[in-house]
Amino acid sequence: MDALTASIEVEVHFYDVDSINMVWHGHYVKYLEQAREAFGRQYGIAYLDVYAAGYTTPIVDMHIRYKQIAHFEDKLRVEIRYVPCRSAKIIYDYTIFNQADGSVVAEAQTTQLFMTREGTFEVSSPDFYREWSEKVGAKGES
Amino acid sequence: MDALTASIEVEVHFYDVDSINMVWHGHYVKYLEQAREAFGRQYGIAYLDVYAAGYTTPIVDMHIRYKQIAHFEDKLRVEIRYVPCRSAKIIYDYTIFNQADGSVVAEAQTTQLFMTREGTFEVSSPDFYREWSEKVGAKGES
Amino acid sequence: MDALTASIEVEVHFYDVDSINMVWHGHYVKYLEQAREAFGRQYGIAYLDVYAAGYTTPIVDMHIRYKQIAHFEDKLRVEIRYVPCRSAKIIYDYTIFNQADGSVVAEAQTTQLFMTREGTFEVSSPDFYREWSEKVGAKGES
Amino acid sequence: MDALTASIEVEVHFYDVDSINMVWHGHYVKYLEQAREAFGRQYGIAYLDVYAAGYTTPIVDMHIRYKQIAHFEDKLRVEIRYVPCRSAKIIYDYTIFNQADGSVVAEAQTTQLFMTREGTFEVSSPDFYREWSEKVGAKGES
Repeated sequence: MDALTASIEVEVHFYDVDSINMVWHGHYVKYLEQAREAFGRQYGIAYLDVYAAGYTTPIVDMHIRYKQIAHFEDKLRVEIRYVPCRSAKIIYDYTIFNQADGSVVAEAQTTQLFMTREGTFEVSSPDFYREWSEKVGAKGES
Repeated sequence: MDALTASIEVEVHFYDVDSINMVWHGHYVKYLEQAREAFGRQYGIAYLDVYAAGYTTPIVDMHIRYKQIAHFEDKLRVEIRYVPCRSAKIIYDYTIFNQADGSVVAEAQTTQLFMTREGTFEVSSPDFYREWSEKVGAKGES
Repeated sequence: MDALTASIEVEVHFYDVDSINMVWHGHYVKYLEQAREAFGRQYGIAYLDVYAAGYTTPIVDMHIRYKQIAHFEDKLRVEIRYVPCRSAKIIYDYTIFNQADGSVVAEAQTTQLFMTREGTFEVSSPDFYREWSEKVGAKGES
Repeated sequence: MDALTASIEVEVHFYDVDSINMVWHGHYVKYLEQAREAFGRQYGIAYLDVYAAGYTTPIVDMHIRYKQIAHFEDKLRVEIRYVPCRSAKIIYDYTIFNQADGSVVAEAQTTQLFMTREGTFEVSSPDFYREWSEKVGAKGES
């Protein structure tokens, strides 16, 4: 199976830059979320699709490794890759590139669980997600 | 009637400072909201009280005048004053002081309307709010 | 003289939406700044141009009037218009539209002053700004 | 040697809560930074001390594990612990507690490097940091 990936472009705005003239490390969390949103729309598993199925998918683990400084007006590209996984989790890997030279600005991974409207976490994958996995060929037999 | 006021202290954190070493102007919006939250708790008109009565109160007008630069690690004090008003609006005035010398950092005013759960704005004050106004002596006979 | 204007598109991301499912009012400040950045690049008065001339231009007044709620995944368009002015100020008007139906989501105005590297505000327009005004035909003879 | 620790209290404000009524995961990054600031002041290694010595200390790795949902008006306590380390890194562990019941809301670890004013990363610990380590008894002989 080919990897499921999506890609977005992000421009560094003034309000994301800190007093040492670099993107404040916390703002990368927004860039990752933008990438997840794009992935969701591209593969039919957007926030509102998941919500319609009765779930939200809170982040339970986020790991970011900052490789290089990003500056005001830099143009970044965020590549997101779906990581197939047998358990009831959604895992994504991310690479953030500086478009000017293709260098890696940051790498990240996030893990999400399925939470019902009542606020409980599912221990096995919800039906809608299993169906989605089969449809896109992302079955987790890694 | 005496003015209804509340006051909070805010410390400037690194993440609120921009690349010209001052608090980014957009972050003051958070300081104003912190002051509204403190006012609400002090006078029994907190967000969750309003919500329990069937309403939320979106901001429809916000005006901030920046008088002086605030820096990293500055300690600010935000004073919020309820502005009595006969129409179905909640109006607050704010003054933000630098605690070091008592100088004024910014002044602001916000206006909020009453929105029902269905998303319509009330043209006259909801009952719960009229009762609250009478109780605190904030009748708007300005 | 024709008005100097620029326009950007903004998409509402999950992280800009609050617990009553609307864009939190403070996040509009970012949308305005994105529009100023686009205007600056289009007309040769970007942040880094101003900085190279020895100045920064802090916001001293910001007034936002919220007309309509914006939701997650809404596509907005921010139109920024330069307001000619004889004194040493940069004034912009903004209109934020919902692209779906062209309705007005918010209107705003910001005022900026010229601050030197030493942190003093200029009472008359710096040379570089007068030259820019003449070049673009924005002389403030309104 | 006893662990070097500090502790801060954080209240969840409206602007930190997302549309599923929980603190948006990205806002925890601010809570961690507030804790680092408090630690720095308590032990004489604040941002401005480090800056005076010629350095800044960008985050190069951040890992957050979210254990439990935090809600609007929750009162949290962030405990930060210095992790001694022989190499030219500053490592902190964090635990975020809900003050209501003492339960763990999140755990985190951050790693920072020493960057000179010229933007290069130091491969061995700067003198000022070695002196600080010896003074506080945090030598990294773990």
